[in-house]
Amino acid sequence: MDGDGASSTGATPSEEINGPGNLMDFLDEPFPDVSTYEDFHTIDWLREKSRDTDRHRKITTKSRESYWELIKGLLDAWSGWVVMLLIGMLTGTLAGVIDLAVDWMTDLKEGVCLSAFYYSHEQCCWTSNETTFDDRDKCPQWQKWAELMTGNSEGAGAYVLNYFLYISWALLFSFLAVSLVRVFAPYACGSGIPEIKTILSGFIIRGYLGKWTLLIKTVTLVLAVSSGLSLGKEGPLVHVACCCGNLFCSLFSKYSKNEGKRREVLSAAAAAGVSVAFGAPIGGVLFSLEEVSYYFPLKTLWRSFFAALVAAFTLRAINPFGNSRLVLFYVEYHTPWYMAELVPFILLGVFGGLWGTLFIRGNIAWCRRRKTTLLGKYPVLEVIVITGITAVLAFPNPYTRRSTSELISELFNDCGALESSQLCDYVNNPNMSRRVDDIPDRPAGPGVYTALWQLALALVFKIVITIFTFGMKIPSGLFIPSMAVGAIAGRIVGIAVEQMAYHHHDWIIFKNWCRPGADCVTPGLYAMVGAAACLGGVTRMTVSLVVIMFELTGGLEYIVPLMAAAVTSKWVADAFGKEGIYESHIQLNGYPYLDVRDEFTHRTLATDVMRPRRSEPPLAVLTQDSTTVEDVEALIKDTDYNGFPVVVSRESERLIGFVQRRDLTLAIKTARQKQDGVVSSSVVYFTEDTPQAAEACDPQPLKLRRILNLSPFTVTDHTPMETVVDIFRKLGLRQCLVTRSGRLLGIITKKDVLRHMAQMMNQDPESIMFN
Amino acid sequence: MDGDGASSTGATPSEEINGPGNLMDFLDEPFPDVSTYEDFHTIDWLREKSRDTDRHRKITTKSRESYWELIKGLLDAWSGWVVMLLIGMLTGTLAGVIDLAVDWMTDLKEGVCLSAFYYSHEQCCWTSNETTFDDRDKCPQWQKWAELMTGNSEGAGAYVLNYFLYISWALLFSFLAVSLVRVFAPYACGSGIPEIKTILSGFIIRGYLGKWTLLIKTVTLVLAVSSGLSLGKEGPLVHVACCCGNLFCSLFSKYSKNEGKRREVLSAAAAAGVSVAFGAPIGGVLFSLEEVSYYFPLKTLWRSFFAALVAAFTLRAINPFGNSRLVLFYVEYHTPWYMAELVPFILLGVFGGLWGTLFIRGNIAWCRRRKTTLLGKYPVLEVIVITGITAVLAFPNPYTRRSTSELISELFNDCGALESSQLCDYVNNPNMSRRVDDIPDRPAGPGVYTALWQLALALVFKIVITIFTFGMKIPSGLFIPSMAVGAIAGRIVGIAVEQMAYHHHDWIIFKNWCRPGADCVTPGLYAMVGAAACLGGVTRMTVSLVVIMFELTGGLEYIVPLMAAAVTSKWVADAFGKEGIYESHIQLNGYPYLDVRDEFTHRTLATDVMRPRRSEPPLAVLTQDSTTVEDVEALIKDTDYNGFPVVVSRESERLIGFVQRRDLTLAIKTARQKQDGVVSSSVVYFTEDTPQAAEACDPQPLKLRRILNLSPFTVTDHTPMETVVDIFRKLGLRQCLVTRSGRLLGIITKKDVLRHMAQMMNQDPESIMFN
Repeated sequence: MDGDGASSTGATPSEEINGPGNLMDFLDEPFPDVSTYEDFHTIDWLREKSRDTDRHRKITTKSRESYWELIKGLLDAWSGWVVMLLIGMLTGTLAGVIDLAVDWMTDLKEGVCLSAFYYSHEQCCWTSNETTFDDRDKCPQWQKWAELMTGNSEGAGAYVLNYFLYISWALLFSFLAVSLVRVFAPYACGSGIPEIKTILSGFIIRGYLGKWTLLIKTVTLVLAVSSGLSLGKEGPLVHVACCCGNLFCSLFSKYSKNEGKRREVLSAAAAAGVSVAFGAPIGGVLFSLEEVSYYFPLKTLWRSFFAALVAAFTLRAINPFGNSRLVLFYVEYHTPWYMAELVPFILLGVFGGLWGTLFIRGNIAWCRRRKTTLLGKYPVLEVIVITGITAVLAFPNPYTRRSTSELISELFNDCGALESSQLCDYVNNPNMSRRVDDIPDRPAGPGVYTALWQLALALVFKIVITIFTFGMKIPSGLFIPSMAVGAIAGRIVGIAVEQMAYHHHDWIIFKNWCRPGADCVTPGLYAMVGAAACLGGVTRMTVSLVVIMFELTGGLEYIVPLMAAAVTSKWVADAFGKEGIYESHIQLNGYPYLDVRDEFTHRTLATDVMRPRRSEPPLAVLTQDSTTVEDVEALIKDTDYNGFPVVVSRESERLIGFVQRRDLTLAIKTARQKQDGVVSSSVVYFTEDTPQAAEACDPQPLKLRRILNLSPFTVTDHTPMETVVDIFRKLGLRQCLVTRSGRLLGIITKKDVLRHMAQMMNQDPESIMFN
Repeated sequence: MDGDGASSTGATPSEEINGPGNLMDFLDEPFPDVSTYEDFHTIDWLREKSRDTDRHRKITTKSRESYWELIKGLLDAWSGWVVMLLIGMLTGTLAGVIDLAVDWMTDLKEGVCLSAFYYSHEQCCWTSNETTFDDRDKCPQWQKWAELMTGNSEGAGAYVLNYFLYISWALLFSFLAVSLVRVFAPYACGSGIPEIKTILSGFIIRGYLGKWTLLIKTVTLVLAVSSGLSLGKEGPLVHVACCCGNLFCSLFSKYSKNEGKRREVLSAAAAAGVSVAFGAPIGGVLFSLEEVSYYFPLKTLWRSFFAALVAAFTLRAINPFGNSRLVLFYVEYHTPWYMAELVPFILLGVFGGLWGTLFIRGNIAWCRRRKTTLLGKYPVLEVIVITGITAVLAFPNPYTRRSTSELISELFNDCGALESSQLCDYVNNPNMSRRVDDIPDRPAGPGVYTALWQLALALVFKIVITIFTFGMKIPSGLFIPSMAVGAIAGRIVGIAVEQMAYHHHDWIIFKNWCRPGADCVTPGLYAMVGAAACLGGVTRMTVSLVVIMFELTGGLEYIVPLMAAAVTSKWVADAFGKEGIYESHIQLNGYPYLDVRDEFTHRTLATDVMRPRRSEPPLAVLTQDSTTVEDVEALIKDTDYNGFPVVVSRESERLIGFVQRRDLTLAIKTARQKQDGVVSSSVVYFTEDTPQAAEACDPQPLKLRRILNLSPFTVTDHTPMETVVDIFRKLGLRQCLVTRSGRLLGIITKKDVLRHMAQMMNQDPESIMFN
């Protein structure tokens, strides 16, 4: 017979007042300034969800009472859409402003517009009447620095002066960027995606999405991109969009007070960020789904799509590229691709996978070095040195001197008849009179050969410098540099295939599809495939990558080449290591991120992971009716656990509930202040019925059942860890109690799970940040 | 002191042999023909997952042993992609064949091609030399039936003869379709999407995705569509694709033996189905994600995308539409839309929502009537009668006589200069010489007014007949009829707005954007917006709907109108009832489907739902060391539960595990046959250590620990049902045990959860099919 008669019995529990919702009412009001979760802790998704249901239930009940409450209820229901609208509009606006500012400041490194100093080179010559269609880049209003200062635009002197000013501006911009980050918002550095992934998985990093970070990241992003460093604005734009999301969350208590709901908004904001980065709203939503988000219910899918569209249309209204196009790199190809071309496409995929591996390994090794050696102590100096090296090496080569997105745009484009670029210096047949979009293959002229050499140098330069750039203390995205590497490699391969096909029509591989006078190879398509492969190798994006590229070209025809390259690149890169750059950085920083994609396939059981281990002291537990206030306070003082299991008695160890450390501290503090007779020797009761103090002189009991979570999550000690990991992931738990035949044996926290997973992968278990 | 000394103790459990994987080895081999789950039961996702992990682990271990095993391991890893490739290819091929056959048979109702009887009208005139560009539809080789039989193509007699033959063919086709379904594959009827949703959520319906269903559904789909009934082929194509998926699963034991893995393949197959239905691969993947699938990990996303693309390209290679286009309704508009047009677009959204509500209510009421009255007893007669009515009413109106997809295609299209349709009978300015794609607004001619009347009649006809058609015993999809209703309504609104804008340039709403001589209103766009709104109202699709429409037009510009209409339609329809047509049919049929989207917001607790209830007899449990074989057999005989909890003793009721009914039956049967000394009075032991029989004459004990699941899922009785529902959904449980302070109180099955949810919604609790 089981003898613990004091266990809670009887009464229909559904009528009791309990559940976290009421608990929060009770706790929130007396101490409004205490936040629910502490910094660098993980949230409890189940609890957040049930709090939101409580809130919702309350509104529904109230809305039956009066029209005013009904309206309030409707407003509450619509607030999600309002937040999305605001996020979309602000993100689109910021992206437009950033684009305009970057354009202007990038050109400022080379020269200035005399008619209006705030015009970029392109705008300057557009507004000029003296610009001809053939030479759109030249107009008297736009003057290079040397021309303006010395009146001499040619010669060695002018070149040196321009070179010097280019470097000076670059150093100035990057110095400003790194100083602003250092002084005002240290969280504004990097791409932000690893941290946002971690935050969305349920981690708290206070201030990471704050107003100050938003402001500084926007400003320094412009400076960093303009300085000519090998970095892009796509990742940081996601961070900026999430900051906007967080900002608007604070307007609605529905989102600001619930960490779970807030994360739904942030997922949608991430989609808006990618949407404006590339002008690809569907790709943005899929990126958020595939790469960034953790908990992505269908409602969020729909809202993300809305936010992404609003952002894209706001950006189009601002029209920073001046071409009414949403997309960053608009291309249109006129020729189909042929089966035989799959071979070079797959080779580009292999290249992309190798580049991804090289980049991740090199960058992680360098970042680790930065963390552990003296290097990390001088971030400003590091940025200055890297900017200096970049500027010195970039200026002489026309393909690295210009901004990276212009370079990619040129590499993606097909050579029409009117193209003035060096890359399109083909030998034309003087008798030819074909339409602009149907130009047959031609032999390459000297310009193309020069361009090939310059591109090869640019490729090596970009590969090396990007590894050292990503991770410095300035905002830096890696989409654009990765795509640039791929686009250069792809264009080189494309031109090679094109020239081979031209000169060897009779080779068996070309015979069937490439007759003389036909336009059979599009080098721009190779550049695009290469860009997709390299981006895929670094980030391991798959569907979202292909969809973004599909939105850029607008044609289903090129999905197969893109997919072939993306799949190959992912397989090659995965063969060298499963983790993409974001996961690698999460691991490097030791964030407690439980990746949905990692398969846990080891045969360990809950009992192998739970604490206390055999050698450790027993678990710190409370009993339901025999612990005194003093004992509890001692326990709180001596340990730093987030909460304590409550058992029937120390002998039987039968679990009845779990109490949060924070609730316990608050409840005892309040009781000591406000409740007479509660002293150190008062007994804390978690039972339903509290015995009356037998004599008047006995201390008053302290009833704490209402802060007790009566439904703690339990598993048995025989549960495979695989299942435990699944439960932690899918339900977003903070901790889970381990029992055997109803007896409490131990506890498993998210930290324990992560440490165990790391151990199983033979990795350094200490790198996991504490929960 | 807790006195149950017999509880299992000691030993590191991780070294023990246990876990479902080994259990399956033990069970699968002696009884290979016993299937794991019974028909109309739900699967246990966690168990399936852990079985797959075991399988994976075994392969990994083996692959270290020899090269041959390594290759086998690699083949196993690649089999997922192979299955996708096969599914894509077969689905694409079937879709192409269906398209060609439908084309031919639809035209057969009107006439025949003399040059080759297997040519459709279009193909017949294409191959003819006598076809002129202006009158592509007329050629001497194509003869209507009356012309062929009487030599007279004009006059009342010919009309009546054609009318009669049209009806006869329609009746023949539909009679064949319903007879084939009745005789060979009853599961081939309907759209199949409600059942596929239920299957994907973890339900077993044997034969629903079988080879026979595949064959019959493909054939009868062609017949049903050709008969001219108001139904489409999109939903059934999803069913056909899933049958293909199931077929290829059986080639690989990885998928055929694991119900969880099989469902991943089926999700991808559903994407391939929609991909070929519309030629929209991305839309297909999103449809599978948003509408059909239940468990959709990222790996499945990527594979679905692959399958959808392969299917789309196979279809394009077959080229059934003869235009190298992937999409069913290819359109290209040349004019932008204006802000003021949002008003009619939103009105179309309202119409779509109202149509959705009307259709769902009407159709469900009719289907319920069919289930409960005599009507359901004569399915063949019902089909014949409805086909007769449809054919009689459809023939006189040119817009209902032709196939619905041709109608939609015409309604979507913009009127160019060369368009010969009655809908494009505008009064042209004789002096006009503009490019084909830039024709200004013109006054409508008499043809347009006739068309408007005919369209209005067609609208009423389609609305009424579709309600009665969907749910008959033939394959029937509702995408096309819904879109047709919306397209007709949209085109009418579009023409109205266009004519208003033409005749009233000076009205304030048109003044700003619609100058005389400008092409400002595109009626085809209105048709498309209307189609999206109506489809959205019926299915409540959102993102996938917009993406499918986006893939049809290929332009981001029209996403805002489409989204405005889709959102409005969803909101309006949701105001009248949260469920789309598929959920309504799931409910009507009483499938145990736990919708991911339903929010459970009631304050009930696990204790209110668990069984046994207070008035019921206590839970059927086994004890770990005091039940005899006889007792167990009696329990199995007397009850029909899926499994039994095992407790330490009846007094303490402390849970130690859960044993499946099937495993128990098998184990006892095997033991009785093969193990000496196991008789009715043998004691069944679930403990680790079994006491030796004290005397030789005592019956041998039966050790069954290895079939005991030592990690049953438990919640406490105080757990809010909201959390329980969440756990059931996310972990895909079959049942969950309820404990209080370690004592077993009861059990909650998926059926209990569904019944409780239905009760809470004040619905008929008996409609839930038993688990």
